[in-house]
Amino acid sequence: MEFHTTYSENNYTIYVNNGILKETLLKYTNQYEQVFYIIDSHVYDLHEKKFKDFNNVIKVPRGESFKTIENTMSVIDELLDQNVKRNDLMVVIGGGATGDGGAFVSSITLRGLDYIHVPTTLLAHDSAIGGKTAINRKQGKNLVGTFYRPNAVIYDLDFLETLPEEEVLSGFGEVIKHAMLDGQESIDALLEKTKNGVDIKNLNAFILNGIRTKMYYVSVDEKEDNLRKFLNLGHTLGHALEYAFKLKHGAAVVLGIIGALYISNKRYDDTFDIKSFINYVKHIGYDLSPLKNMNATEMIRYMSSDKKNMRKSYIGYVVLREFGQPELIEISTSDLETLLNELKAIV
Amino acid sequence: MEFHTTYSENNYTIYVNNGILKETLLKYTNQYEQVFYIIDSHVYDLHEKKFKDFNNVIKVPRGESFKTIENTMSVIDELLDQNVKRNDLMVVIGGGATGDGGAFVSSITLRGLDYIHVPTTLLAHDSAIGGKTAINRKQGKNLVGTFYRPNAVIYDLDFLETLPEEEVLSGFGEVIKHAMLDGQESIDALLEKTKNGVDIKNLNAFILNGIRTKMYYVSVDEKEDNLRKFLNLGHTLGHALEYAFKLKHGAAVVLGIIGALYISNKRYDDTFDIKSFINYVKHIGYDLSPLKNMNATEMIRYMSSDKKNMRKSYIGYVVLREFGQPELIEISTSDLETLLNELKAIV
Repeated sequence: MEFHTTYSENNYTIYVNNGILKETLLKYTNQYEQVFYIIDSHVYDLHEKKFKDFNNVIKVPRGESFKTIENTMSVIDELLDQNVKRNDLMVVIGGGATGDGGAFVSSITLRGLDYIHVPTTLLAHDSAIGGKTAINRKQGKNLVGTFYRPNAVIYDLDFLETLPEEEVLSGFGEVIKHAMLDGQESIDALLEKTKNGVDIKNLNAFILNGIRTKMYYVSVDEKEDNLRKFLNLGHTLGHALEYAFKLKHGAAVVLGIIGALYISNKRYDDTFDIKSFINYVKHIGYDLSPLKNMNATEMIRYMSSDKKNMRKSYIGYVVLREFGQPELIEISTSDLETLLNELKAIV
Repeated sequence: MEFHTTYSENNYTIYVNNGILKETLLKYTNQYEQVFYIIDSHVYDLHEKKFKDFNNVIKVPRGESFKTIENTMSVIDELLDQNVKRNDLMVVIGGGATGDGGAFVSSITLRGLDYIHVPTTLLAHDSAIGGKTAINRKQGKNLVGTFYRPNAVIYDLDFLETLPEEEVLSGFGEVIKHAMLDGQESIDALLEKTKNGVDIKNLNAFILNGIRTKMYYVSVDEKEDNLRKFLNLGHTLGHALEYAFKLKHGAAVVLGIIGALYISNKRYDDTFDIKSFINYVKHIGYDLSPLKNMNATEMIRYMSSDKKNMRKSYIGYVVLREFGQPELIEISTSDLETLLNELKAIV
């Protein structure tokens, strides 16, 4: 399966299928004199034979721990020491975090190198698309970064087979989000298919649909001036919980979605059956205790640094009028604190 | 005087005149809820009363010493601690280095904030235009950065009146370069006008012309894929000398131009009268001893990390067929070493 972006220039292809890495990569690497590979060290160990022909491999710390400025600069220094040229190619292999950080490295080294995303997790079906790069600061997640398009995304689904359950559940958070943004039919089908648990083998159709949804939003609004913000459904509270409780990203997003549904209900006459959604996510394995134990004041402090916010003392929040109908509202921090405390009580 | 860029979108205006800062800035700052000012600490001390109405001033280390990743992150942390929003405005006030670093900060904070350049030096008539941002690494100058357009450039020539002679001479290096890129007539006029020394009051017409030349190249080739590289005339050797001898940028560029003329002569039948150019630059106050004392091997090591280079063991080098006719050639590192050693002997 191939998707093509529809920007006015610098378009790229997203390849999705099993067993496509080697062949697809070669089409690109052949065009460059030098290729550098940034690979998540854990992914490297798991799939070493896939990478045995690669020269210039830079292994980086696993997952989110990579996304510091110190790690960023250490990779850049390694590239510079190896005499990287502006017309060389970077290939970034790993999950969402490796992708965020590796793409950030690519975007600021020599003012920007070509790069290819090779996502290896379910979560990365989301993060690899849309050209956002990022690292974290102590003030919050993804606060430093760029918008910078890859030259291709190669999503070889073979990588998903080695994912631990925790990783699958994390990625599944974004699958739920995309289905809710897509509409009633999509979310119904997804909940039905996964009512007895999440099996990665059953998800291909939903992954492809998620990529389609994501591509729609990032192509109409790359820089997140308006519509793209809807992709933050579940992320406002989600990022705060993720940071405070050191959760997996997608697992935090699921908790954030519960928050978004709760606030949507308060705003628009109880559209959503939250109780049964809570039961569903518990049943398929998510831990809801962070939502129960969160400190609302602390959450709001984190949310105040969210990039969506446009006014002081107000938090930009994506809610749903119904499935498929997201809206961005502003909630005063004091109202939000009340809402979060109510939410704690019903989880 | 106003110049307007001619990109297909995200165009901006370059305002050039005396006494325009306050009024022009207000047209922009009025449109934002919050404005943050990054100001070179030396410029701040010299012009404190110009800045007395500004809130949110972040003073940064003077000149090139600002352009480290540590200083970059410290400014970003200050912005994040003050709850900067994605729709806030940054105003960057200082010379070329402050501009490079402040623009880099603007480009990676929350994935990019609007920013306005307020250049305060002669050198910055060059660097403020074209949307290049940068910081330095131990491997060389400007190796980390982005392409990121400002929302406006406000070049208030009043700032130039307080420039020390050393700064004027530094900026004058780029004025010479622009005139040489422009053609025989421009360079003849400039040399005639400054034959008894560089007086900033006589330079307005040449500054405007330089801005026009620079704008032409950055509008036809923003990302430096081809023609923009010509603006690197004098910069290949210049950057290396600057780094090795801790020279002022423009002073190093003048030495680099001597190198470019020498190599041009070797390639194209002695077009240029280098002896008299050397006498001219000595007479107006440049120190040529770094050119005489450079270690060719060391220079080539620095030049090898130059972003223009496209092949290993070759250096991309801008030469002149005649004034107004630049060309990019590739020279093997061994040939270049020979040429540099010859050059040392004639200075």
